[in-house]
Amino acid sequence: MRVAFQGEPGAFSEAAAIQLLGESITTVPRATFEGMFRAIAEGAADAILAPVENSLAGSVVRVFDLLLESRLAIVAETILPIEMQLIALPGASLKDIRSVASHPMALAQCERFFAAHPNWKRVPAEDTAGSVREAISAGDKSRAAIAGRRAAEHYRAVILAERIQDNTENFTRFVLLVEAEPGRDETCDTAKAGRFASPGVADLMVELRIRQMEQSVSPPALKMSLAMRLAHRPGSLLASLEPFARHGINLQKIESRPIHGHPWEYQFFIDVEANSTAQLDAALLDVSKATSFLRILGLYPAAQR
Amino acid sequence: MRVAFQGEPGAFSEAAAIQLLGESITTVPRATFEGMFRAIAEGAADAILAPVENSLAGSVVRVFDLLLESRLAIVAETILPIEMQLIALPGASLKDIRSVASHPMALAQCERFFAAHPNWKRVPAEDTAGSVREAISAGDKSRAAIAGRRAAEHYRAVILAERIQDNTENFTRFVLLVEAEPGRDETCDTAKAGRFASPGVADLMVELRIRQMEQSVSPPALKMSLAMRLAHRPGSLLASLEPFARHGINLQKIESRPIHGHPWEYQFFIDVEANSTAQLDAALLDVSKATSFLRILGLYPAAQR
Repeated sequence: MRVAFQGEPGAFSEAAAIQLLGESITTVPRATFEGMFRAIAEGAADAILAPVENSLAGSVVRVFDLLLESRLAIVAETILPIEMQLIALPGASLKDIRSVASHPMALAQCERFFAAHPNWKRVPAEDTAGSVREAISAGDKSRAAIAGRRAAEHYRAVILAERIQDNTENFTRFVLLVEAEPGRDETCDTAKAGRFASPGVADLMVELRIRQMEQSVSPPALKMSLAMRLAHRPGSLLASLEPFARHGINLQKIESRPIHGHPWEYQFFIDVEANSTAQLDAALLDVSKATSFLRILGLYPAAQR
Repeated sequence: MRVAFQGEPGAFSEAAAIQLLGESITTVPRATFEGMFRAIAEGAADAILAPVENSLAGSVVRVFDLLLESRLAIVAETILPIEMQLIALPGASLKDIRSVASHPMALAQCERFFAAHPNWKRVPAEDTAGSVREAISAGDKSRAAIAGRRAAEHYRAVILAERIQDNTENFTRFVLLVEAEPGRDETCDTAKAGRFASPGVADLMVELRIRQMEQSVSPPALKMSLAMRLAHRPGSLLASLEPFARHGINLQKIESRPIHGHPWEYQFFIDVEANSTAQLDAALLDVSKATSFLRILGLYPAAQR
């Protein structure tokens, strides 16, 4: 199985793909989110692993936009702790280091570590794993980089200091995307959405796991992601959420976003958790009546936390 | 009036402060969001202008966390178009340019422009305005930087190419924060929140504008931002939103966030729009009964779009 991700080899996204699917997969790096979303159509990948939210930085809005433009469906999720490591050439030690490179966001997440080493030069880079590649290929023991453990392994570098990020509660949630069943209309409008569209390849991949979870004792185990549109008038959101509550379904996440070119209309991204598909089916039939657009982005087992 | 912002002189945040309050203010740059939030208590600023959401990148989660930890209140908002300019030394022309520096996010937002100039070297930097400062102070005509118009003005540089960003629908929403009335308990729990806490300095600053808006003919003109906590059980969100719908108040934005250390509890950030404070008062009394925590983050005139 070939899984495309955004970033350089050794990126957190690659680590997340392996956490979810194991070491036997082939990972396919892409420079941009747009390139990653094209990888399946280009025949370069069977699936995509995309970040959707980070506990510190919030939702990855661009991924939701591209997901809505695509015919892909979410079939699994995984939550990766984002731990920053100080990485350098084998043989280097902390006293050798003069400069530390990484993406500005990673540099900013390690302020306490930099405060303890005031003489180190901060060097901004376009990519965390890429900054490790550059430091190692330079063969210079005075150059370090900040990235995840996988980047150190990939470039055969050493970790000089572990978990140097300020905030330990740093997690990123990723989703696995595959092509929806060919021929099925995935941009389903409300009229067709009563019975949710089960994604094609998705069935093959998660059916077994979903069944196992439905039979297990620890609810809630089923997660569904949806996008829906409402008129911007009092009560319309309420009417669309009420069926979930009535059928005992937990609202796990909700986020509103303006719709480009429609100033007073809003799009909502929603994650719900349920114990059975029957529960979801019943609720969706009613939700579809309260929305002008409803798309099931995916049905998948909830990740353990 | 002294207004603190995050970034270097010439940053988009500084441009937003001046868009909202005019050229007569004194702007106070701070390197980090944390430093910016301390500026009022340190006596260095009277107010703070903080970014809260971008149309492409989503919510600025860290600002909401710091706002909740603070005793500050939102008293105004402003929406700034984020337009990227190619900036260089006076006398330089496009054919002189060899390298272009900026924050990786700004570089990534100008992919089409870079595709048209494949020989230019991309140089990541920690700050957009800071990359202009560095290019100009080097006195090198081959070095350009990508930042906003204000950075070009601040460093007396020239704009070689205008609005070079790929996506023209790039806006950032900023809020103006001031200290809430001293002595008033701003971390108000639900029992006290029926009558909303009007922020201290806020009254002085916006009372007049709010009155003008209430008397104007174009609703909705009043905006209120709230944070609330609910138990993670079916129906609790619904119960907390129902009073807004019943009182004819528009839900303008809603976003859920997990609460650190409380795995099954959620915090919601909500923006509503109303025509009168009476409408809001009536709704809040009922909302307070459906929430375990409710805080009014601010009441202010809605920005024109």
